[in-house]
Amino acid sequence: MPVIIGALRESAPRETRVSLVPEVAEKLAQSGARVLLERGAGASAQFPDAAYRGVEWADSAAAVLEQSQVVLAVQPLSLEHIQALKPGAVVVGFLQPYARREEVKALKERRITSFAMELVPRISRAQSMDALSSQAAIAGYKAVLIAANHLPKFLPMLTTAAGTIRPAQVLVIGAGVAGLQAIATARRLGAVVEAYDVRGATREQVKSLGAKFVETGVSAEGAGGYARELTEEEKRKQQEVLDSRIAAADAVVTTASVPGRPAPKIIPRAAVERMRPGSVIVDIAAEQGGNCELTRAGEVVTHQGVKVVGAVGLAGELAYNASEMYARNLLNFLKPAIQKGELAIDWSDEVFAQACLTHAGEIKHEPTRKAIEG
Amino acid sequence: MPVIIGALRESAPRETRVSLVPEVAEKLAQSGARVLLERGAGASAQFPDAAYRGVEWADSAAAVLEQSQVVLAVQPLSLEHIQALKPGAVVVGFLQPYARREEVKALKERRITSFAMELVPRISRAQSMDALSSQAAIAGYKAVLIAANHLPKFLPMLTTAAGTIRPAQVLVIGAGVAGLQAIATARRLGAVVEAYDVRGATREQVKSLGAKFVETGVSAEGAGGYARELTEEEKRKQQEVLDSRIAAADAVVTTASVPGRPAPKIIPRAAVERMRPGSVIVDIAAEQGGNCELTRAGEVVTHQGVKVVGAVGLAGELAYNASEMYARNLLNFLKPAIQKGELAIDWSDEVFAQACLTHAGEIKHEPTRKAIEG
Repeated sequence: MPVIIGALRESAPRETRVSLVPEVAEKLAQSGARVLLERGAGASAQFPDAAYRGVEWADSAAAVLEQSQVVLAVQPLSLEHIQALKPGAVVVGFLQPYARREEVKALKERRITSFAMELVPRISRAQSMDALSSQAAIAGYKAVLIAANHLPKFLPMLTTAAGTIRPAQVLVIGAGVAGLQAIATARRLGAVVEAYDVRGATREQVKSLGAKFVETGVSAEGAGGYARELTEEEKRKQQEVLDSRIAAADAVVTTASVPGRPAPKIIPRAAVERMRPGSVIVDIAAEQGGNCELTRAGEVVTHQGVKVVGAVGLAGELAYNASEMYARNLLNFLKPAIQKGELAIDWSDEVFAQACLTHAGEIKHEPTRKAIEG
Repeated sequence: MPVIIGALRESAPRETRVSLVPEVAEKLAQSGARVLLERGAGASAQFPDAAYRGVEWADSAAAVLEQSQVVLAVQPLSLEHIQALKPGAVVVGFLQPYARREEVKALKERRITSFAMELVPRISRAQSMDALSSQAAIAGYKAVLIAANHLPKFLPMLTTAAGTIRPAQVLVIGAGVAGLQAIATARRLGAVVEAYDVRGATREQVKSLGAKFVETGVSAEGAGGYARELTEEEKRKQQEVLDSRIAAADAVVTTASVPGRPAPKIIPRAAVERMRPGSVIVDIAAEQGGNCELTRAGEVVTHQGVKVVGAVGLAGELAYNASEMYARNLLNFLKPAIQKGELAIDWSDEVFAQACLTHAGEIKHEPTRKAIEG
């Protein structure tokens, strides 16, 4: 029996992405699976139903859920959708294990096998499945566009008959995937770019993109490619240097986050107050509480002439490409588990083992289990 | 007696620019003039009062107008402000001779000497005074940022572990100053760019910026660097080719205008309907009626999934740099008329002669005089 792989029209507010784009749906169908989509699933990502080939359609989420052995999603399934899943179903998506406890419990209780794309190990072989990275790259690009659009200045230098316009100064804080893409985009637009990361190992990547690395004399390499938290003394030293670079910047893009924890506060109110009026901060970490003390998620706060943009859902604003990349990540993740059109998960594969959130009535991800079950 | 040069806080709705920035105010003061600013004049352009050196301040527009021999402005002075001008005053600004008949009449009746920056001749020597060009360059840059921000796609090509994202296709219509800056900006951002202008002479400029020139087999070189209007047959031929390039584009930026006339309609509804959903048109000519049939000035119209942005006041969205460039244009225009701090206009200079809108109780600009007085 060929596996039925279903995808819903996302129902979370403001979510514009879709988990299956035509290119990937077609590949899954060609691999022998049956692909079942809720009508209009891709519409908000600019993939009309007519763009999908070789798939089947259902008129409601319920109809998709009652037939699908595998359900692909962008956002965590709602409690209602979890109740409607077929017994033994497999769910793959951003399941937000740290934030969505009720949903994790429901997945466990219904004995659903769920894989959280956030938990895919950051090993070389799994790079093509790294959805956090693909979506972060989009967020980094978009953050610079937002900054450029708020700024009352050109990013590039401009030479005209009436003299020269100086290029804008952009500071990027956090040189992960989002930060590096922000640097690259600001450089493309001709800005003078500085970047900072507590992980000194990012220095060469920053420089290779044509940006200057802000040296604070503090390093905080952590496990798994993320930064560890700093000591108070380290923070103070870092802050002194950073504050002066923030004050010099026309636009600041902040991207620092630690998984499962509130975002580190890097830009205090006092630093904002040293910035020139008209300057802009775009805070990609707004959903995790923000890197700036003044950030309010989903809002633009103006403080003494400085705009602080609490950016949320940035990847969704480039829904077409974000969906394209996310769907490819899902395909690369799922492909080894589909043999001749049938589902066969190899639990000895560390990618499946580590990405697994719930299975057979258990929470398999240890930090989530501890947080929920103690 | 040193000439008093005054600048107001602009009062037109949504106008954020200022006619005098600190750098230029200081140069005028150094040349021996007295510079008088209305308090807060530069605030919305991010030039706080404290940034100006060597100037004097007045608490109201009335106080500036009653003392100033020369008044610098961005937008046309209001009728009320014209009435408050000192006898014999000189006004320099964008005076919109074609649109603001009542104001032109009032300037004439009050025997004000007014210079419209729109009328500065497009000769090589006057390039540094060409405010239409300096503001158009800003509009072209901003239009691409707006397009990029509305688009659900990346502009640049992106190569990731999960495969490649294709670059966006941008079509720029009209290769004047705004169009060329739009091309340059879209190229900076990594888009694949095509451009079209009825004036075939722009072909090499377009190509030198890394864009492809759309060949329609129609040319319409006109006088003064602007395009002439096309015949019906030429229009049809142009339209066929253009429509297919519009349909292929993710983003279209239109910049075609003819001074004193409604903007040519280049993108009919049918062409919009051939575009992919999620595509964007940014119409810089919206204030002149728009290049697209669906454009509504100041609004974003969504038609069958295509966004049509009726862009207005684009230069004002980059108020800092726009003011900087405009103020330099004014300085370059005014400089020859200030001798040892006193005003002395050389009427034999074709720049002053041609830029003059009203003087000594007459409308000096012939097309405006005809339109108003017949």
